[in-house]
Amino acid sequence: MRKKTKGKSGKDFTVGLLQLAFSENTDDNLKKAVSWVDKAAKKGAQVICLPELFRTQYFCQKEDVEFFNYAESIPGSSTDAMQKAAKKNKVVIIVPVFEKRTEGIYHNSAVIIDADGTIAGLYRKMHIPDDPSFYEKFYFTPGDLGFKSFKTKYGNIGTLICWDQWYPEAARITALQGAGVLFYPTAIGWHPHEKEKYGNAQFESWQTVQRGHAIANGVYAAAVNRIGHEIVVPGTPGLEFWGSSFICDPQGVIIAQGSVDKEEIIMAEINYKHIENIRQNWPFLRDRRIDAYGDIEKRMID
Amino acid sequence: MRKKTKGKSGKDFTVGLLQLAFSENTDDNLKKAVSWVDKAAKKGAQVICLPELFRTQYFCQKEDVEFFNYAESIPGSSTDAMQKAAKKNKVVIIVPVFEKRTEGIYHNSAVIIDADGTIAGLYRKMHIPDDPSFYEKFYFTPGDLGFKSFKTKYGNIGTLICWDQWYPEAARITALQGAGVLFYPTAIGWHPHEKEKYGNAQFESWQTVQRGHAIANGVYAAAVNRIGHEIVVPGTPGLEFWGSSFICDPQGVIIAQGSVDKEEIIMAEINYKHIENIRQNWPFLRDRRIDAYGDIEKRMID
Repeated sequence: MRKKTKGKSGKDFTVGLLQLAFSENTDDNLKKAVSWVDKAAKKGAQVICLPELFRTQYFCQKEDVEFFNYAESIPGSSTDAMQKAAKKNKVVIIVPVFEKRTEGIYHNSAVIIDADGTIAGLYRKMHIPDDPSFYEKFYFTPGDLGFKSFKTKYGNIGTLICWDQWYPEAARITALQGAGVLFYPTAIGWHPHEKEKYGNAQFESWQTVQRGHAIANGVYAAAVNRIGHEIVVPGTPGLEFWGSSFICDPQGVIIAQGSVDKEEIIMAEINYKHIENIRQNWPFLRDRRIDAYGDIEKRMID
Repeated sequence: MRKKTKGKSGKDFTVGLLQLAFSENTDDNLKKAVSWVDKAAKKGAQVICLPELFRTQYFCQKEDVEFFNYAESIPGSSTDAMQKAAKKNKVVIIVPVFEKRTEGIYHNSAVIIDADGTIAGLYRKMHIPDDPSFYEKFYFTPGDLGFKSFKTKYGNIGTLICWDQWYPEAARITALQGAGVLFYPTAIGWHPHEKEKYGNAQFESWQTVQRGHAIANGVYAAAVNRIGHEIVVPGTPGLEFWGSSFICDPQGVIIAQGSVDKEEIIMAEINYKHIENIRQNWPFLRDRRIDAYGDIEKRMID
């Protein structure tokens, strides 16, 4: 591999994704997450990312006002605990939070905590899904902070959340802000009755579209999903979360991937020489036709 | 599969991609292409697409003003022959042309010929590459017609050309115009000395990013590449075009793929029930945040 050119660039760092299962006990979930942050930091992870909505089971399987009680403020108990863990371990942590902004306005958010324990930024999920057993539009107001990247002690990182991963615009606008890696905290699973027939195609689509974002933008992509079969509504089949958290490089090559059903840490290095090498050899960012993309702001051109 | 809903929709049609090798003789190349159009039509193809710059070998391996002599007008000899072939066979043909627009302005274009032999539209390659042995910026003025889809006898189709395939914006804006399939006439190959070490990753990137466009937009994607080892500059290693033309469905599943080194027709059906089914179950187009994509018109956000 060639040496990096001089001038502006990022420093390399190590990413750790925490692929975990979550119970009905929100305190236990927080304790578990903190202990895995410690473990990942000991293994050398510098930027650690938790799965979407890690404090709870995936309650969006049902529309129920009771579940708004899971929401919390920022700062709040999740960020308090993670700020301590970040400072203690000198790591950056991406902390998904079901954010209560005010009475009646809740967001599906991610707080970026820097390695000194301070809050470095907030992202609010921009694209909100709504499908059977994924009733997110009931709970989450779409984000109003736009797409963002964040400068942390270890590097410039972007975060998006789950459904955002299907949108090339989100990846592009985040990458253009200088992120070397796009994090995707996620909660995605199979409907048990669809798993056999459609399961593989669904997983493949999910991974492929994110690999595509990495390729198109010359960045790493890192998706972290939960595991476990969660039945939030008794008597229903629930959702089987498919784990398979992964990190791919700026050419879309999978460099680390987790199992379907085990709790584990998925780690990889974000290497700026590699980013630069790929971007010099496949100079897509050079040739963008920014004069001709205006119609992307339309719903449909008909 | 569920039935289609009523209301606006497309009719199904069959696509045929002509994966061919091309010689130094531009007349032979045209004759060969016409005979393969006949063959594809007999096999049932209704919308047929030729590889990029099919009249010539891939001359952009060198910057040489002599090669501007390959350029032709629209209409010209390529479109004349293909208009006849289209009318005779009642097929739509996508005809890549090295277009002479005026002295000193040349484009890498694609003419869409309708099934009655009339010219249905013109696309001029918007993103122009420039890499060792792919010196396209020397020859081709970037397109000024924008991204387009075209209503033909058999359906609404989009066409982009080669380097465009790395740009999610191009796919999105074309798909938003109603195209059910994005065609990518292509000339992509390996530098022989890179093939063993990087060849597979390069091919994988190329295919993955296009599968990603299909997934993100809920459309079919159809890329048609040439085959053959072309040495335009004697004494150089030349380029090994990798064939592997393919068609993927709106979930990114490869439904037809050609060989690396054989002339052949790659065919598949564009099925609107399938498009609708995928788009209803994975409703990405519904949730686009068109209020938040403006920054995509920036080079970099720094």
